[in-house]
Amino acid sequence: MNQDYIKPDNWSIIEEGFDVESVKSSESIFSIGNGAMGQRANFEENYTGETFQGSYIAGIYYPDKTRVGWWKNGYPKYFAKVLNAPNWIGIDIEINGENLDLNACAKVKNFRRELNMKEGWYNRSFEATLQNGTEIKVNIRRFLCMDLDEVGVINYEITPLNKEAKIIYKPYIDAGVTNEDANWEEKFWEPLETKDHENEAFVTAQTFKTHFKVTTFMQNSILENGKKLNLSPEIVSATKEKVQFIYSVSIAKGEKSSIQKIGGYTVSLNHENTLSGAEKVIKEALAKGYDLLLAEQIETWSKIWEMSDITIDGDVKAQQGIRFNIFQLNQTYSGKDSRLNIGPKGFTGEKYGGSTYWDTEAYCIPFYMATKDQQVARNLLTYRYNQLDKAIENAEKNLGFKNGAALYPMVTMNGEECHNEWEITHEEIHRNGAIAFAIFNYHRFTGDYSYIPEKGLEVLIGIARFWHQRANFSKDKNQYVILGVTGPNEYENNVNNNFYTNYIAKWCIDYAYEQIQKVSLEYPSDHKRIIEKVKLSDVELQDWKKVSTNMYFAKSEELGIYLQQDEFLDKDLVLVKDLDKSQRPINQKWSWDRILRSPYIKQADVLQCFYFFEEHFSKEELQRNFEFYEAFTVHESSLSPCVHSIQAAKLDKMDMAYAFYLRTSRLDLDDYNKEVGEGCHITSMAGTWMSIVEGFGGMRVKDDTLHFSPKIPKEWTGYSFKINFRNQILKVSVNHKETQFHLEGTKNLTVFVNGKEVNVAPNSLITV
Amino acid sequence: MNQDYIKPDNWSIIEEGFDVESVKSSESIFSIGNGAMGQRANFEENYTGETFQGSYIAGIYYPDKTRVGWWKNGYPKYFAKVLNAPNWIGIDIEINGENLDLNACAKVKNFRRELNMKEGWYNRSFEATLQNGTEIKVNIRRFLCMDLDEVGVINYEITPLNKEAKIIYKPYIDAGVTNEDANWEEKFWEPLETKDHENEAFVTAQTFKTHFKVTTFMQNSILENGKKLNLSPEIVSATKEKVQFIYSVSIAKGEKSSIQKIGGYTVSLNHENTLSGAEKVIKEALAKGYDLLLAEQIETWSKIWEMSDITIDGDVKAQQGIRFNIFQLNQTYSGKDSRLNIGPKGFTGEKYGGSTYWDTEAYCIPFYMATKDQQVARNLLTYRYNQLDKAIENAEKNLGFKNGAALYPMVTMNGEECHNEWEITHEEIHRNGAIAFAIFNYHRFTGDYSYIPEKGLEVLIGIARFWHQRANFSKDKNQYVILGVTGPNEYENNVNNNFYTNYIAKWCIDYAYEQIQKVSLEYPSDHKRIIEKVKLSDVELQDWKKVSTNMYFAKSEELGIYLQQDEFLDKDLVLVKDLDKSQRPINQKWSWDRILRSPYIKQADVLQCFYFFEEHFSKEELQRNFEFYEAFTVHESSLSPCVHSIQAAKLDKMDMAYAFYLRTSRLDLDDYNKEVGEGCHITSMAGTWMSIVEGFGGMRVKDDTLHFSPKIPKEWTGYSFKINFRNQILKVSVNHKETQFHLEGTKNLTVFVNGKEVNVAPNSLITV
Repeated sequence: MNQDYIKPDNWSIIEEGFDVESVKSSESIFSIGNGAMGQRANFEENYTGETFQGSYIAGIYYPDKTRVGWWKNGYPKYFAKVLNAPNWIGIDIEINGENLDLNACAKVKNFRRELNMKEGWYNRSFEATLQNGTEIKVNIRRFLCMDLDEVGVINYEITPLNKEAKIIYKPYIDAGVTNEDANWEEKFWEPLETKDHENEAFVTAQTFKTHFKVTTFMQNSILENGKKLNLSPEIVSATKEKVQFIYSVSIAKGEKSSIQKIGGYTVSLNHENTLSGAEKVIKEALAKGYDLLLAEQIETWSKIWEMSDITIDGDVKAQQGIRFNIFQLNQTYSGKDSRLNIGPKGFTGEKYGGSTYWDTEAYCIPFYMATKDQQVARNLLTYRYNQLDKAIENAEKNLGFKNGAALYPMVTMNGEECHNEWEITHEEIHRNGAIAFAIFNYHRFTGDYSYIPEKGLEVLIGIARFWHQRANFSKDKNQYVILGVTGPNEYENNVNNNFYTNYIAKWCIDYAYEQIQKVSLEYPSDHKRIIEKVKLSDVELQDWKKVSTNMYFAKSEELGIYLQQDEFLDKDLVLVKDLDKSQRPINQKWSWDRILRSPYIKQADVLQCFYFFEEHFSKEELQRNFEFYEAFTVHESSLSPCVHSIQAAKLDKMDMAYAFYLRTSRLDLDDYNKEVGEGCHITSMAGTWMSIVEGFGGMRVKDDTLHFSPKIPKEWTGYSFKINFRNQILKVSVNHKETQFHLEGTKNLTVFVNGKEVNVAPNSLITV
Repeated sequence: MNQDYIKPDNWSIIEEGFDVESVKSSESIFSIGNGAMGQRANFEENYTGETFQGSYIAGIYYPDKTRVGWWKNGYPKYFAKVLNAPNWIGIDIEINGENLDLNACAKVKNFRRELNMKEGWYNRSFEATLQNGTEIKVNIRRFLCMDLDEVGVINYEITPLNKEAKIIYKPYIDAGVTNEDANWEEKFWEPLETKDHENEAFVTAQTFKTHFKVTTFMQNSILENGKKLNLSPEIVSATKEKVQFIYSVSIAKGEKSSIQKIGGYTVSLNHENTLSGAEKVIKEALAKGYDLLLAEQIETWSKIWEMSDITIDGDVKAQQGIRFNIFQLNQTYSGKDSRLNIGPKGFTGEKYGGSTYWDTEAYCIPFYMATKDQQVARNLLTYRYNQLDKAIENAEKNLGFKNGAALYPMVTMNGEECHNEWEITHEEIHRNGAIAFAIFNYHRFTGDYSYIPEKGLEVLIGIARFWHQRANFSKDKNQYVILGVTGPNEYENNVNNNFYTNYIAKWCIDYAYEQIQKVSLEYPSDHKRIIEKVKLSDVELQDWKKVSTNMYFAKSEELGIYLQQDEFLDKDLVLVKDLDKSQRPINQKWSWDRILRSPYIKQADVLQCFYFFEEHFSKEELQRNFEFYEAFTVHESSLSPCVHSIQAAKLDKMDMAYAFYLRTSRLDLDDYNKEVGEGCHITSMAGTWMSIVEGFGGMRVKDDTLHFSPKIPKEWTGYSFKINFRNQILKVSVNHKETQFHLEGTKNLTVFVNGKEVNVAPNSLITV
């Protein structure tokens, strides 16, 4: 795929021309979602070429039996994965006796896809000559309602170009779907019942094992030149898992025939009776009708953009890239429901099981915190609070911890660990740290302390207990050590004293300790409730502090750096720039042992620590560590470049900062890694946002105040971003000469720009 | 299973009483083999209870598609596993209209199994009352001919006890078999053709993928009171993969009816035409007949015992245990064929795929070297020589080495790596060391240097090149280090500078270097041939030496010990004796991360080094290291206690030495680990032999001379063993007062006993 595949455009993602080789990639890129459901850009009509079918419902998962080569104690029995959900979009089309199939047409021209990010819809159009000679023009628009979030809408319009056409529309809903990544080729859905009534049909199915009940529904209308016909299906065919309607129409050359399909899901998470729920939802959608639903969609997206848009002047590809990232993040997670979270591929593919990773806390929360109501970030924190019991159970039953120590899973749907590689599942324990850090970060940004006495403190205590038990005292070093871990850099396994892990472990204990003191003073009844619940004694607290105050950190005095782990300097320290290009990416070229013993870093590790705890270190320390580690970092994780970009900007290495920024902002649109067909990299998109806001904009929150140190890549003429800071929207616009602030709000806001205090009055423009 | 399950007996393994719970265990323990084929003690007649069917042919394997949870570069695509071979033993039996099935009989009594180790046969007898009221007595004897090693013989004898019986014998051969451990439930055998002729039948099948062709054959005779009847099968039923004959006889109460079945395999490894080969083999076996075949079997085993027996006086269970071990080793590997090797479970189960591990070089070669003609050990060395090209390919293609560096596989059938855990496949590279050490050990024991210029030197060069490339220079330590390995102690993964690995790496380079010099001087034409072939320059040789002379070894000066690996002393050093019993065995109780960061040692690691290179260290060093590491060793590998037993004996810790000895000698007979049903621990049986000969007997070879330092456990009154030392058999008998030597040979032999020179004349008894 080349860089011309997606046409540059400020607000839309556009593909022109039909290429069977790009179908799977485009299915990912043109995915739509509304936080509650998602849909890959699969064709409605039958397609016999290569395709990866994917419809997804947030929160609906299946515990697929673990597949391993060699079992190890402590492995979870299941990997909970996002389900390919029943198909609601399908419309088989027959034209003059021939099935429409873009893979079998005599000719396809003017094929075009557009994902209109400003308005939140996806459009596909083409002209085709069928094997029977009929020429048709087709235009299909599809969207998933952001408001009525159980509903998707399709308008499928056909114009015969050279003769009259007899068109048979065969819309269907089908629960007979499978996952491509099923471990044992099992079916995940058990069909329960079907129902049809006039133009409506319902297929109710439940997931095996988890027993989530889902009613998939459709309602169809046939139109001629935009006017609804009073048609009922001629034939209804129904099996246990599929209902299909047949409508026949004849349409003259040049006239427009269309089918409007309303479809979607009602799920037992939200409905006691999913069938009657579906009937109600259809009624609601029908009452509004297609045009109003579309108008509402545009309106809702316009509000989203008002709070979260980033503009980039002078670089349309960069503009398109950042908007695509913001658009996808909003499609993936709306923040309404604390039972949901953000899968690394969102609703664009099956990979990574659609589960929750530490990506959420480390990379996504800053975006949602700054561009949404603060309740959204609070819901993400609450998600972990609600899974605390499972994290304690995980630490106890699987890993042998005790006394309420909590280890959050590496990968999860419902709080149970899903992943099964010991080096990750058992050793990549730093994830616990990010979950505690997110609580700190939420309070720092929003100023809302109430979350901590209400819920957060219990999480902090469980995590501090884990670190306390996980460290052990080394007589040899006369300090506490943390042995056998995998740090954020997953190109090391089972190392001792990973700097990031030891640092965040110490920080977690200290932070939990401080919050206990603070809650004790300021929220005594919460303090009492919690301490009684978790049975925390002063003796235990003092034991914690012994570990945190006497934690070991490996350093090199000579180089003035912290060591990523013990003995890092024993490696054969060949710089990335001196590594033969033919050896990259090393994760595709090298065996695992070779990767492990090499000095190459998959993603920010020591530098991740400097990112989280920037204020704990001097700029000189940052510079020394950045220069040392950056030279060994291969950034083979999509989550890596953003941290380096932010730090490069801070260190005035703007060319480098910009290069790192570029590396992720169009990762999927330009398909750098030739894998976008599997789905888009949703969680790393939040890192791209961070690169601009925290990197180029230099935004930080210190002592309840926003700080900026705006910089601008020389390739741009200007850029702007918006921040929801404590319920006021601040727009920051940067060009090569000045920075402007505009505040939508009611109260004066003091910010610091390059250390200088600036007062921003509501609804006025301040230029610095 | 309790310790009374197997009756104590000096020469036989005996089970009495029928217990459905023990069937699978007994099927392993009573397995028979002849080096070319093996057979679990499955019943000939149909059995509907729980059973684990297993027939195995040496050298016939199937590359089963690898199953992993998460693929890593460098993993092999296949795991070559020993095949469950076509069934040649089956004889369905019908008596007065009822199928004989021990799981369905009204009553079974006097059930008895005997594995007569002295004579090499397996007998099963019982009395059963059928549901139809017929009472019968049954006696079945089975053996696999040691000489005619493609042939097995069964004599199945039935005596009706309370009435006349109409007996229908339905012997069959069947290629429709599967492996229990198939990764993808595939069939491994493709049937090709069947043939039958009078009392003979043949099923020819080939393995999928590897296309080994095997003709499974049978020839049946029906006897009455021991006299052959001139009967042909009444009915022959044949499918594509199975032929079954039906013979009906009537036999009066108290008379004996029997079927004699000759069966077995001819394989394409040894026959151009397996079918005509089978016909010839049957003719040969028939010409001898059952009685002569049995007599030959007894004769052959008597010769084996003459060279390899160990006697123990005053402890029948210990006597039975050690003989069982020697018997199984002889059943597993005869040493005739350098294409074969010794699977960890021999022919007693599927586990470990029946493949070759470093067990062969580290544990088995000393036994075969001392109790067989030296050609047998030479064949085991040649096996690796023949796989050198594959080892070079493995290092190059899978792991990125170059220039002829060889990494032998962890697990193999044909020289290709089969195992797929990076921490073992890629990191447990010390196996290379044992393969080089075996060459040294062979020369040390046999005095036959010719193997080195002929074949061994090329292997040594490939291995030295591997170590040279695998080590890297640490600027920080100013020495060469070996990072990211798994040592013999598999309870550590990805550690730096495992002492054993570093030591044997250095030794391999030095030994290869010395042999190159020696061959250069003493075998100049071989030297020229080899150096030209492998393109070895003096520059490269000097580079090797840089690594070996400047290799890093971690030590603790304070404790006076070598460190198993860097940072071993950072662990929480709780002794095994202080570990709660409920936590053992840790490999069943603990998650992998917990095992890894614990100090507990699965099997001898630093001490394995002291075992191989005893003369490089002082007794005080051994004592300090032994006392330190033994206290952390959990011996959860069956290969561990033997090394500790030998060293404990050397250190005059005889109670400990004896306890370690006991731990393996009856491992399978007493089923300590509740897993004998999966098969017996064949390779560790050689360690039991080593415990007596090298441990209690203190046998060493130094400067072409045998040394002994005999000790005896207080529980025994005496013991003896035999050694084939350079083509003379030396019998060593030890009791609490003295040691006696008896030499079967022609030349005087000088030995050292506790450092004192003793001359042993042929065919006379010397008492010391």
